[in-house]
Amino acid sequence: MEVIDGNRIAASLIAELKAEVSAIRGRKPCIALVRVGDDPASVSYVKKKGSTAAEIGIESRVLLPPVAIGQAALEALVDSLNGDPGVDGILVQSPLPEGLDERAVFGRVAPGKDVDGFHPVNLGKVVQGDDTGFAPCTPAGIMELLARSAVALAGKHVVVLGRSLIVGKPVALLALARTAGANATVTVCHSRTADLPSFARQADVLIAAIGRAEFVTADMVKPGAVVVDVGISRVADPSRKAGYRLVGDVHFQSVAPLASKITPVPGGVGPMTVAMLMRNTVKAFRLRGAS
Amino acid sequence: MEVIDGNRIAASLIAELKAEVSAIRGRKPCIALVRVGDDPASVSYVKKKGSTAAEIGIESRVLLPPVAIGQAALEALVDSLNGDPGVDGILVQSPLPEGLDERAVFGRVAPGKDVDGFHPVNLGKVVQGDDTGFAPCTPAGIMELLARSAVALAGKHVVVLGRSLIVGKPVALLALARTAGANATVTVCHSRTADLPSFARQADVLIAAIGRAEFVTADMVKPGAVVVDVGISRVADPSRKAGYRLVGDVHFQSVAPLASKITPVPGGVGPMTVAMLMRNTVKAFRLRGAS
Repeated sequence: MEVIDGNRIAASLIAELKAEVSAIRGRKPCIALVRVGDDPASVSYVKKKGSTAAEIGIESRVLLPPVAIGQAALEALVDSLNGDPGVDGILVQSPLPEGLDERAVFGRVAPGKDVDGFHPVNLGKVVQGDDTGFAPCTPAGIMELLARSAVALAGKHVVVLGRSLIVGKPVALLALARTAGANATVTVCHSRTADLPSFARQADVLIAAIGRAEFVTADMVKPGAVVVDVGISRVADPSRKAGYRLVGDVHFQSVAPLASKITPVPGGVGPMTVAMLMRNTVKAFRLRGAS
Repeated sequence: MEVIDGNRIAASLIAELKAEVSAIRGRKPCIALVRVGDDPASVSYVKKKGSTAAEIGIESRVLLPPVAIGQAALEALVDSLNGDPGVDGILVQSPLPEGLDERAVFGRVAPGKDVDGFHPVNLGKVVQGDDTGFAPCTPAGIMELLARSAVALAGKHVVVLGRSLIVGKPVALLALARTAGANATVTVCHSRTADLPSFARQADVLIAAIGRAEFVTADMVKPGAVVVDVGISRVADPSRKAGYRLVGDVHFQSVAPLASKITPVPGGVGPMTVAMLMRNTVKAFRLRGAS
């Protein structure tokens, strides 16, 4: 059994991007990071995105509109970033505070600057297999993690647990695509699936993105399967100083001995998401003909 | 075993649309049908679309640019239809002659007039489950056919054979959606799938859209399954006056006795595609606030 080291793989990708960006003459790629409100997780994510950008040499601009900003003002802010020739990528940190229409805001970002990959045009390009778009970062990061771990998907059975817009559906489409590294047979299961364990047990590659702590147990995994854990939850743990520990959607301790390869939580899929956001930002810069 | 009568169900839908359109005061919905070249199948399809529109009371305008029209001129024609306030829906008949970039043309159609559902924005809205878009007509027709045949998909295992952009991928997304009539567990198989028959045999609902004549045989179907046949091929048949007969992707004779319900070819999915195009046209008219 091999634990897939997402931190190491993300670091390689970041080093490659750093080399690429350092070779750019003149203006460097720039990402605008928009955070509304002070949700602690959002604060931490935006900080991480900014520091990773800095490490690569990508400029970042952090915009912190007041939590009371209305829908119209937030969309106007997005419009101004859309029209700013110095901005290549725009990230609006999710979740937005109550009362703001997230889908409308994401749909307002110019498709060519939508480095998060949430605009319907970019989702449609994922369906089409059109590489001029931006795939959402977590699913794209999973594909990259598998490719860099020498997991060939062609003809394999990929079972995705979860049908979210951010992970489940797009990763299913990417695994199904007619592209090198993909060509998998794909099953998507979810809360309404009858006898989910029987599907999970068929997986050559099991992608758990169902958002339930330690949901996948040993009886749901075929010996030798590759297991990708997208979940991240806090569970109370009085033995830890923080009073909790982070766990994924997979019960790592019991599943790991069965798997041929498995991603840990934390340090698996998570670090790839930020790295892919940076890759999308450099791609946006290139596609805009900025260099 | 019940043979699902696509002609009858499409006729019901058309009758409903006719009643709806007849209640519209003033200008009626209008679809522009663009056909480039004289491919016999395209001639026949465009004719059928025009006659179905007429039956409902939808205006249709047939545009027949010369086969030598270039990419730029065809896109300019699309632009003029996009800008024409009297046109609600635009259909560019596929396939376009060699040398024309079909994806670029489909992507040129204004999303709000893309009644064929091939624009990336509309495909993205299928992924998002956003009902303000247009789902491609054949997959939407399959869902309608199942709903009107009292086939409930929730929790059922739908196996789709084929991953085309026009049928396989969007029907998988529609069956997976969090909407009434959907909520299925979905597997997509294709030419690269290892042991496809073993997946097909698991299906509660088997959707064959692989484009191979009579590919699905009795050994690939679970007794009691619902079988939807999207294929249409000509096979030589000297006993017929025409010298051929039309068959689907399913070997009807051997599979039908096993199935609980099955669509025939012709007269199954086919008639639904045109009916759904008309429904999308009326929807486009409504969404534009034309009435």
